[in-house]
Amino acid sequence: MTRPEPPNNSAAAVVLLSGGLDSATTLAIARQQGFACHCLSFSYGQRHSIELDAARRVAASMHAAEHRVIDLDPRTFERSALTDAAVDVPRDRDEAAMAGAIPSTYVPARNLLFLSYATAWAESLDARNVFIGVNAVDYSGYPDCRPAFIDAFERAANLATKLGVEGVNDGSGGLRVHAPLIDLTKAQIVERGVSLGVDYGLTTSCYDPDARGRPCGRCDACRLRAAGFREAGIPDPALRSA
Amino acid sequence: MTRPEPPNNSAAAVVLLSGGLDSATTLAIARQQGFACHCLSFSYGQRHSIELDAARRVAASMHAAEHRVIDLDPRTFERSALTDAAVDVPRDRDEAAMAGAIPSTYVPARNLLFLSYATAWAESLDARNVFIGVNAVDYSGYPDCRPAFIDAFERAANLATKLGVEGVNDGSGGLRVHAPLIDLTKAQIVERGVSLGVDYGLTTSCYDPDARGRPCGRCDACRLRAAGFREAGIPDPALRSA
Repeated sequence: MTRPEPPNNSAAAVVLLSGGLDSATTLAIARQQGFACHCLSFSYGQRHSIELDAARRVAASMHAAEHRVIDLDPRTFERSALTDAAVDVPRDRDEAAMAGAIPSTYVPARNLLFLSYATAWAESLDARNVFIGVNAVDYSGYPDCRPAFIDAFERAANLATKLGVEGVNDGSGGLRVHAPLIDLTKAQIVERGVSLGVDYGLTTSCYDPDARGRPCGRCDACRLRAAGFREAGIPDPALRSA
Repeated sequence: MTRPEPPNNSAAAVVLLSGGLDSATTLAIARQQGFACHCLSFSYGQRHSIELDAARRVAASMHAAEHRVIDLDPRTFERSALTDAAVDVPRDRDEAAMAGAIPSTYVPARNLLFLSYATAWAESLDARNVFIGVNAVDYSGYPDCRPAFIDAFERAANLATKLGVEGVNDGSGGLRVHAPLIDLTKAQIVERGVSLGVDYGLTTSCYDPDARGRPCGRCDACRLRAAGFREAGIPDPALRSA
């Protein structure tokens, strides 16, 4: 039996959703652009797995079409401070330090794998769009947040897939990987999200929250988030509600 | 094959291993080149999951350093004949048909995802080499078996990873994705494997084996395999033992 293919699902997008500030903003942008958003999160042994609860709250609050949490084998990501309790999360780093060497919180090939899953799911949905909340301005120095990687991934994904081959043939261009935050400062991201009605009180950014889920205030993610809200002149509602 | 590994683990490779003819040959080539081979297989709801038993046999017979089988969420790969019992596996297609449209056995973004996992694992191992047994001569028309995809993936993987960034800095070039079969005919692959001592009786290629694991003889994979052995003038030991 051959099953009829769904019509070109041009109004659907897969949105990578971590439960943090950036991905919540990205979801709001995708939604504003009119996409039905299929949100994708990953459980990969991250010490801040509390972010998955945040991702669920964010997806629900923004009326996602669907939200999936996929289990990844944590053994694939050994030797990261985010997956190995024996490796410390760096604290109190200033911007100069963050702009230097890749930190121990780097997770091997994480965005490559996340985007590959998103591509597979997009193709299953016959969707043509994937969103990722990477940011190359106020970030921790991860290589997989740079524009050159996003461009190279989009190219590889289109060469890898039926979606891409058909996109060449029908002139649609195949899969598009959107990284709408890539050139924004953290303050600009906060402003954009607030203007779109994102409730940042639902999000969590900390790499190393305590047992009650409260942010440490000292890891790169906490520091970048705090600086963003401060520069935007907006109080962080997640701190208020903590 | 137990040998001390140098600090940067340049002698280790991750080898994608399906349990079929091509990946068994690729493993033999990687081993001949002196790599300690960390083999990686995937359980993704494929109807021919018997291939995972073959992968285990092949890895053991070739003294792999390690063999991991990773579970992927089958919902990611909907609408493929290999993962959906409601979609028929095409049969009795000739070479012209195989060279035409992408068949229903295409699995969305499969090699993109497999290679991304291999890259993450390689980075965790501090390995610099990944092997994949894709072949763009006698194949079913999958886009993710073409040289352009492999090249684009290698580029994206190096931009995505610490391994790649360091490879630029230290001049090593970072991660290399090896596709040693890409320009070979199926007959040449068989000849190469036989010369390297591959026991093809341990491998399975069929997309749709019966309940006892016997190949159907009519799917693309069976037909390509049979033609390869025929052209090489070598009997297929998997048929003899079936």
